[in-house]
Amino acid sequence: MLSPENLTDADWKEIMNIEDTIKDMARSARAAAGQMAGFSTDQKNAALLSIAAGLARDAVFIQEQNRRDLDAAEQAGLSAAMIDRLTIADDTISAMVTGLNEVVGLADPVGTMGPTWIRPNGLQVSRMRIPLGVIGIIYESRPNVTIDAAGLCLKAGNAVILRGGSEAIHSNRALATVITRALQESGLPAKAVQVVPVADRAAVSVLLGQEEFIDLIIPRGGEGLIRFVVQNSSIPVLKHYKGVCHIYVDADADLEMAQNLCFNAKVQRPGVCNAMETLLVHRSAAEAFLPAMARRFETAGVTLRGCEATCRLLPQAEKAGESDWAAEYLDLILAVRVVEDMQQALAHIARYSSNHTEAIVTRDYDRARRFVREVDSSGVLVNASTRFNDGGQLGLGAEIGISTSKLHAFGPMGVEDLTTQKFVVLGNGQIRD
Amino acid sequence: MLSPENLTDADWKEIMNIEDTIKDMARSARAAAGQMAGFSTDQKNAALLSIAAGLARDAVFIQEQNRRDLDAAEQAGLSAAMIDRLTIADDTISAMVTGLNEVVGLADPVGTMGPTWIRPNGLQVSRMRIPLGVIGIIYESRPNVTIDAAGLCLKAGNAVILRGGSEAIHSNRALATVITRALQESGLPAKAVQVVPVADRAAVSVLLGQEEFIDLIIPRGGEGLIRFVVQNSSIPVLKHYKGVCHIYVDADADLEMAQNLCFNAKVQRPGVCNAMETLLVHRSAAEAFLPAMARRFETAGVTLRGCEATCRLLPQAEKAGESDWAAEYLDLILAVRVVEDMQQALAHIARYSSNHTEAIVTRDYDRARRFVREVDSSGVLVNASTRFNDGGQLGLGAEIGISTSKLHAFGPMGVEDLTTQKFVVLGNGQIRD
Repeated sequence: MLSPENLTDADWKEIMNIEDTIKDMARSARAAAGQMAGFSTDQKNAALLSIAAGLARDAVFIQEQNRRDLDAAEQAGLSAAMIDRLTIADDTISAMVTGLNEVVGLADPVGTMGPTWIRPNGLQVSRMRIPLGVIGIIYESRPNVTIDAAGLCLKAGNAVILRGGSEAIHSNRALATVITRALQESGLPAKAVQVVPVADRAAVSVLLGQEEFIDLIIPRGGEGLIRFVVQNSSIPVLKHYKGVCHIYVDADADLEMAQNLCFNAKVQRPGVCNAMETLLVHRSAAEAFLPAMARRFETAGVTLRGCEATCRLLPQAEKAGESDWAAEYLDLILAVRVVEDMQQALAHIARYSSNHTEAIVTRDYDRARRFVREVDSSGVLVNASTRFNDGGQLGLGAEIGISTSKLHAFGPMGVEDLTTQKFVVLGNGQIRD
Repeated sequence: MLSPENLTDADWKEIMNIEDTIKDMARSARAAAGQMAGFSTDQKNAALLSIAAGLARDAVFIQEQNRRDLDAAEQAGLSAAMIDRLTIADDTISAMVTGLNEVVGLADPVGTMGPTWIRPNGLQVSRMRIPLGVIGIIYESRPNVTIDAAGLCLKAGNAVILRGGSEAIHSNRALATVITRALQESGLPAKAVQVVPVADRAAVSVLLGQEEFIDLIIPRGGEGLIRFVVQNSSIPVLKHYKGVCHIYVDADADLEMAQNLCFNAKVQRPGVCNAMETLLVHRSAAEAFLPAMARRFETAGVTLRGCEATCRLLPQAEKAGESDWAAEYLDLILAVRVVEDMQQALAHIARYSSNHTEAIVTRDYDRARRFVREVDSSGVLVNASTRFNDGGQLGLGAEIGISTSKLHAFGPMGVEDLTTQKFVVLGNGQIRD
């Protein structure tokens, strides 16, 4: 955080400029949002297609600007993984274009109405979906978020302010140029999508104070970024901290199915938030299940960290410590615990889960039903891999993120979660007594 | 705000105690919420009826404790209006009992599921309503909120921490005693409803930091309280600052209907947030409408503050200043503006409204449709009084408040708004490619 007493005059000057810049952006975004709400689905789709065309047309320019970020990243000694995420290769551009086309294909939620009911006095009451307004998105390194997030926000009729990582500043500015031109060509307000043009962290603090103009902040990135945003924002925040996802293999589970699901949930893409981090096994299934499962995990190089009972069955397993039960490894490491019964599995999940995704493998109807009812997570699965708790996989279309807090949205958030509902009341002269 | 350098050792000691107390409350509330989610509708209703019975049985005790608050309020020289709101008369108790009975009659949203859809791979996806978890409610003076809010939160399967005004501390403690006993008698966790037992303002600051244990904060009270909560909470907040509600009387409105609606919206209960504060009249209706309307308002003692055109038509009107267009009078005062056309009415509303409630009076289909679509408020009404934007009036049952921010809920919030939805995914062995 900035500390006022350490600032020079020059620092202050720059901060004041940042403050003015961000406030102007927020104010223009609010004005643009007022216009955006009135555009038809066809107009919004035309703009999305125009952005897609611009990306293809200006690929060389975008990649030149991306090169500047990559050079700086190499000089700064960033990790290969970070440089990989920062790179806009030809297929990154293709993926952005494909993503925009998918958003064009999504149903437009704006203007749809739910059930209508009639009050005793004849008032006809319903709810109409409307855009949220202005959304601020604060994210790290991957510049494709700039296009993906802009596309979803526009489709839902919102204006958006994007603040990418400072290491991607030239890439994001280039993408912003493409977007702005496409918006203008399509007759949408140019300020409907704005990218914060300065790398300074102070811009984020100022952004988080624009409660008057911004309706929602979505941070995407590491836990540190997200905690900073939550602590400093007076604007509502949709977020997820982490995914400590469990699979519970029940006493009478189909053990072949259990093996397939657990392998998929841990190995298919270990670095994502809906990958399994802890495996819980009913003690009566442990002996038949764990050694075979461990051999399968061995083929993929998975390190196992087990409770005492697990270590007795699996000599290759390391001993798990308390911190393993709360760990989001995002890696080929798995915590394994043998539980006495389903009650102990549920208690373990209640204590250590991050309310993200949990699954049960079982053949028992009552226990499946109980697991679904009692597990307090955004996605609860029966006999399916945790990896399915994802907007695309669940049929929401593209997702803007996954929420593990319960307000507004819990779980994967699609385009509909970027809208809200207002009450529409049609009368013929009703007054209150 | 507390300022560390002014604190004595005794102050610090007390603050540390408050911090421990509130943290313990928050932790116990989280544990109670885990149990609450599993209770059936019948069990929850039995507890609500038991609270109602306790209120009737312990009326004398409650009123004795209320007397202590009233004595202190009189000594402190609180206004008659504040003392009136603080008083628990016999009919206040009856109203609390009636309110609880109404909540018993509401449908229980917990466990209900929306539509189910099938993915191409055979996964069956749906969403199940679940309680939000732990809700903190921070409110001022009126002790009946303690019962009303506890009832709604319990019905939705939540645990709740209530922090009433310091002037109602003895009343709220007495109500808490009644609630706790009723919960115990009904077999629900005693900690499902807790009242902060200390009057110190520091308790609020500590409460707002318990993000780990509390899912939602609802502040109810003046704008100062609400802004304090928003600025200091890392927990999501549902709030409304104020209601600057408009009625627009269109060119071809039924003027008799317009008169009835405007009179009702301003006069029937001027001190509430859905009362009309600004009247906008199309210039072609102004001459036929305003003088007659003004005479009607005169019978109720309404002061009019008008634009120039209004003042020309109504010599009794005062001249409105810029601040009148943004004012929430909550009193028998009305700002009146003659507009050139509907566009100007919409622009005025976009600029000055608080996104709470706006109505149009018109006979024109296209303009009714346009008003509904373009006005960005939680309640948009055609040919009905703004006073209907209320949970009870719209058919939601009792309301916990009205939200004018768009996340989670926009407008009156009923029992369903105290729940969220999780994804339930039923498979038969699906894995991700």
